[in-house]
Amino acid sequence: LLDEVKPDLCILAINSFVKGVMEEIRLLAKKKVHVITIAEEMAYPYVTEPELSKEIDALAKEHGITVIGTGVNPGFVLDTLILQLSLGVRRVDHVYARRVNDLSPFGHTVMEEQGVGLSKEAFLKGVEEGTIYGHVGFMQSIPMIADALGLTYDEVVQKREPIMTTVDRQTKDVFVKAGMVAGCNHTAVAMKDGKAVITLEHPQQVRPDLENIGTGDYIEIHGDPDVSMVIKPEVPGGIGTIAAAVNVIPHVLNAAPGLITMKDIPVTHAIMDDFRNHLT
Amino acid sequence: LLDEVKPDLCILAINSFVKGVMEEIRLLAKKKVHVITIAEEMAYPYVTEPELSKEIDALAKEHGITVIGTGVNPGFVLDTLILQLSLGVRRVDHVYARRVNDLSPFGHTVMEEQGVGLSKEAFLKGVEEGTIYGHVGFMQSIPMIADALGLTYDEVVQKREPIMTTVDRQTKDVFVKAGMVAGCNHTAVAMKDGKAVITLEHPQQVRPDLENIGTGDYIEIHGDPDVSMVIKPEVPGGIGTIAAAVNVIPHVLNAAPGLITMKDIPVTHAIMDDFRNHLT
Repeated sequence: LLDEVKPDLCILAINSFVKGVMEEIRLLAKKKVHVITIAEEMAYPYVTEPELSKEIDALAKEHGITVIGTGVNPGFVLDTLILQLSLGVRRVDHVYARRVNDLSPFGHTVMEEQGVGLSKEAFLKGVEEGTIYGHVGFMQSIPMIADALGLTYDEVVQKREPIMTTVDRQTKDVFVKAGMVAGCNHTAVAMKDGKAVITLEHPQQVRPDLENIGTGDYIEIHGDPDVSMVIKPEVPGGIGTIAAAVNVIPHVLNAAPGLITMKDIPVTHAIMDDFRNHLT
Repeated sequence: LLDEVKPDLCILAINSFVKGVMEEIRLLAKKKVHVITIAEEMAYPYVTEPELSKEIDALAKEHGITVIGTGVNPGFVLDTLILQLSLGVRRVDHVYARRVNDLSPFGHTVMEEQGVGLSKEAFLKGVEEGTIYGHVGFMQSIPMIADALGLTYDEVVQKREPIMTTVDRQTKDVFVKAGMVAGCNHTAVAMKDGKAVITLEHPQQVRPDLENIGTGDYIEIHGDPDVSMVIKPEVPGGIGTIAAAVNVIPHVLNAAPGLITMKDIPVTHAIMDDFRNHLT
């Protein structure tokens, strides 16, 4: 297919992990095709996959292509947007952000990763065994924020807790009975000398509206000055990720070859006219 | 002084207009000193000062320096931040943003530019005669948003209206009696085929709290999907501008020579560690 189409650029939407897109990136690099991927780990792969990151960067430079991971989260709400909001801040003590979304539009795979529909016991067992992952992205967003802002931390403490429902919740793909798990409250805190430096919370569940839980994106930067931001409802995950992947195309074509991330390219935004107008 | 200190970079905070910083930029360029300025018109000077913009760009390239205008507004809240928030949007119909701030920390010059303390008649006369300017920045923010998003417009309609106070308002520098002007409600709307494409509102007044008016930054992107953001209170103008000017330093040092704007550099943010860590 690649030989037939001879694309300049490919958007990879096949897997959440660096390992899961590695073969495709190797192939695309050899064919000199730029890569935008929504694989969550690729948003900032340096910490979780240092060796593969080096390989991708070297491959990209060798073949003159640019590789980037993006999406709504990681890639935007809990990292790039936090950075942008800190522009008017001269001292950052603590970054606190919370993304409350509705998982309803997603299908079976996501429901299983989040433990939706399980009993509390099955959920906790799944977390222990690693079958319930929650959000893939904290170990990308936290290092990206820390590296950009120049913050350091000793460790990242993650927690995955069941969100129990008191009412029946129905989506197109899943039914959750009252008393069962409607989603996963996944949090990550970067600690420095026993104090939280970056706190990210991402409770994900189906039909939060049925218990009057509003969705939204919340970012607080505590420092000098404080900044407190709210987006209600949340930037939608599905459409938002499609938009982000497409909107970065000219930025990727303009960038120098290599593995890059959202903090390496000019401010990213919607584009309504011909993308070629945005090539430099 | 320049010969003695031999700076790499200078932050110019002397004037709001391109004409008002032009001589200094010419001098700094000759001395090969990068320039960051908070002159509002410099945030996106291409429309209001096309000739001077060309001259600055040519000078900067000739002498190998980078020149940028930044600040909280223009430079951040009503332009760069709007762009960043549109990343997850695939169709933009209308950008609506409103910055409600408190002018109280500012001194006499700002009060005079905004008509604070005048009677309604004196205010309207001042607007007519051009002595009351309101906000310097709309003809920077609107073209920057339009160029980045790829929107076009036929004209920009600006309005400057007095904000009358019903109570006495006192700041460190000015006293406004009930019935007099507490500030200027300056708005700008970019129209395309008779419809608003970009609407920016910036009511600026002293002590809005005395009439229970909360300050804040509000951005709504209407399209697919909608995005609705609130920052309360507003990103403070004074500290925020200082922070923005300082935080862009490494980005400016990393940039290619020339006249650039906030949409040309990687996402801008607070920096807590040694700025040299952020040089590429």
